[in-house]
Amino acid sequence: MVASHTYDEIISQPDALKQTLQMVKEQRFHEKDPDLTVFSGCGTSYYLAVSAARFFQEVTGKPALAVPASEVILHPEQVFAKGLKYQLVIISRSGTTSEAVAACKTIAGRKEIGVMAVTCHAGSALARLAAESIVLDHIKEKSVVMTQSFTNMLYALQLYSAKTSQNDRIWNELTRLPEQMDQVIGQLPQIRELAENLQYRRFIFLGSGVLTGIAREATLKLKEMTQTECESYSTLEFRHGPISIVDDRTAVILFTSEKTKELDAPLMEEIRSFGGHAVAVGHCADQVSADTALVIETDLSGSCQAILLLPHFQMLAYCRAVKLGLNPDQPRNLNQVVKISIGE
Amino acid sequence: MVASHTYDEIISQPDALKQTLQMVKEQRFHEKDPDLTVFSGCGTSYYLAVSAARFFQEVTGKPALAVPASEVILHPEQVFAKGLKYQLVIISRSGTTSEAVAACKTIAGRKEIGVMAVTCHAGSALARLAAESIVLDHIKEKSVVMTQSFTNMLYALQLYSAKTSQNDRIWNELTRLPEQMDQVIGQLPQIRELAENLQYRRFIFLGSGVLTGIAREATLKLKEMTQTECESYSTLEFRHGPISIVDDRTAVILFTSEKTKELDAPLMEEIRSFGGHAVAVGHCADQVSADTALVIETDLSGSCQAILLLPHFQMLAYCRAVKLGLNPDQPRNLNQVVKISIGE
Repeated sequence: MVASHTYDEIISQPDALKQTLQMVKEQRFHEKDPDLTVFSGCGTSYYLAVSAARFFQEVTGKPALAVPASEVILHPEQVFAKGLKYQLVIISRSGTTSEAVAACKTIAGRKEIGVMAVTCHAGSALARLAAESIVLDHIKEKSVVMTQSFTNMLYALQLYSAKTSQNDRIWNELTRLPEQMDQVIGQLPQIRELAENLQYRRFIFLGSGVLTGIAREATLKLKEMTQTECESYSTLEFRHGPISIVDDRTAVILFTSEKTKELDAPLMEEIRSFGGHAVAVGHCADQVSADTALVIETDLSGSCQAILLLPHFQMLAYCRAVKLGLNPDQPRNLNQVVKISIGE
Repeated sequence: MVASHTYDEIISQPDALKQTLQMVKEQRFHEKDPDLTVFSGCGTSYYLAVSAARFFQEVTGKPALAVPASEVILHPEQVFAKGLKYQLVIISRSGTTSEAVAACKTIAGRKEIGVMAVTCHAGSALARLAAESIVLDHIKEKSVVMTQSFTNMLYALQLYSAKTSQNDRIWNELTRLPEQMDQVIGQLPQIRELAENLQYRRFIFLGSGVLTGIAREATLKLKEMTQTECESYSTLEFRHGPISIVDDRTAVILFTSEKTKELDAPLMEEIRSFGGHAVAVGHCADQVSADTALVIETDLSGSCQAILLLPHFQMLAYCRAVKLGLNPDQPRNLNQVVKISIGE
């Protein structure tokens, strides 16, 4: 493995998660009772929002959804319906992403919309605009690419969901995540063979529920670091048209779970029948007819496992970038913070 | 142009829309007052749901969202929160799509969830399971690929939104859509040059708000009919990572509008600076710094224009398939109705 910020930031995730746990444990959150909770962000932070919204609704029983921050600024009436109380949870590593900051400004003065920021930078524009913040200032990524900031901000929102709904069962499970992440990081060299196999020119990542956002984030890592053709779908959506692209140079990676494995297995079989290479990751990855099974050892239940399934694919992107002679810390066409001029 | 079902079904859209208008005009809908309206379907019908949900919320002022039908069956607790009243609008051309039918069965007996089906087949399983249906049985597509079934089912849901919320301004605008579609169909030969330019090996489709679903559907048409590398994003999301793939063999197609053009223009400029070919489609396509502007002549306002922006890209997929020697009516790996075995 070549030394790089990205590599260091991937393998140090267990320690970072421990600090995030401690921080959320100590934080007291405002009481709130919105009709709808909207999670929002851009890019990686939007995919984080997708997973967080599903987790929040499952654990708290209260309705939640995710939208890109740019949709809040361009189409606020399509996001916030009149007469309802909303909580907007807005996510940005830097706390300065243009659309995230503009989203807060778009709704400023609307008393029916509360705002909580999730960021890795205290004192950032976003943290100042929000009524409440979760600030993970122990996360100091130097790479352009977000890795541990994704897992830690998602973990913080999972803990927040359990804590504010007093769901002790889920809270207790989540407290064991950092140690289980330690084991996952130890297994990452397993992914190297797939990552470096240049026969595969197209990667598809599939997941449903909380894993939808994890699959989308895995896709973005590979795309940013290597510009490989790759896409993501809610698992069974893939059969409705996109499956037409599967051939013998396509690897399809399925994020599987106990709850979905019965419908996942026939999909893996179909992909293999079209010549695709079927890879499964998850606790029951060896039960879904995959060519390659990345079994994640965990006793966490259902959606609490989600974060453990990502690091293999952060590492896949990293290893493939190195194999291709690219700098994983500084992808083509990208900067660490995306800024655009909005209404100025 | 080579004769094919797909071609015939694309160019006959204006007449089909007239019949859909007449049908929805005459239909009386049940009164309902859910807390949340959920639009759902699979593949093309899911992208339709994405556009319909945004349109519904904008026009009625009531909250709506879209989820793939498979998410309803795999993760119902992440879709339907306890204690709320829901209306599920479920969409399937055939009315027999496995996940759409299974979604209805998943929630059977839950009195707080009403179901309305939207389909092109009267008497189908879906129409029988739903309390209420919009049945467009004048749409009889022979191609595997959905074209006029998409535009007509979306149009029906737009009309439904205006009618049930007594939004006469929007209803009156929508009644003029079929004649304006006539003009659009007359302009379709414009797209042939881009479609047949095999220098472009990657297509990206961008749209926001109601146009998000239109951009995703344009992507699926090209993917199904030609297996070309193509993807879709909510417009400004593209800058947050995916833009790293733009090169001189990439065409980026932006669905633009009055409301978004100020932020669309700098994005088109950035894409051009990375060597990409920037294409814009919409009423103000010539105002966003694109290399190629497909100006849609229309006096309909905002979201009411959405359906007019799609046919160019149904035709793009068709023309490229013909150029590549493929049969647009029968894409690789696909059947007209997707069936899987669920809990049987």
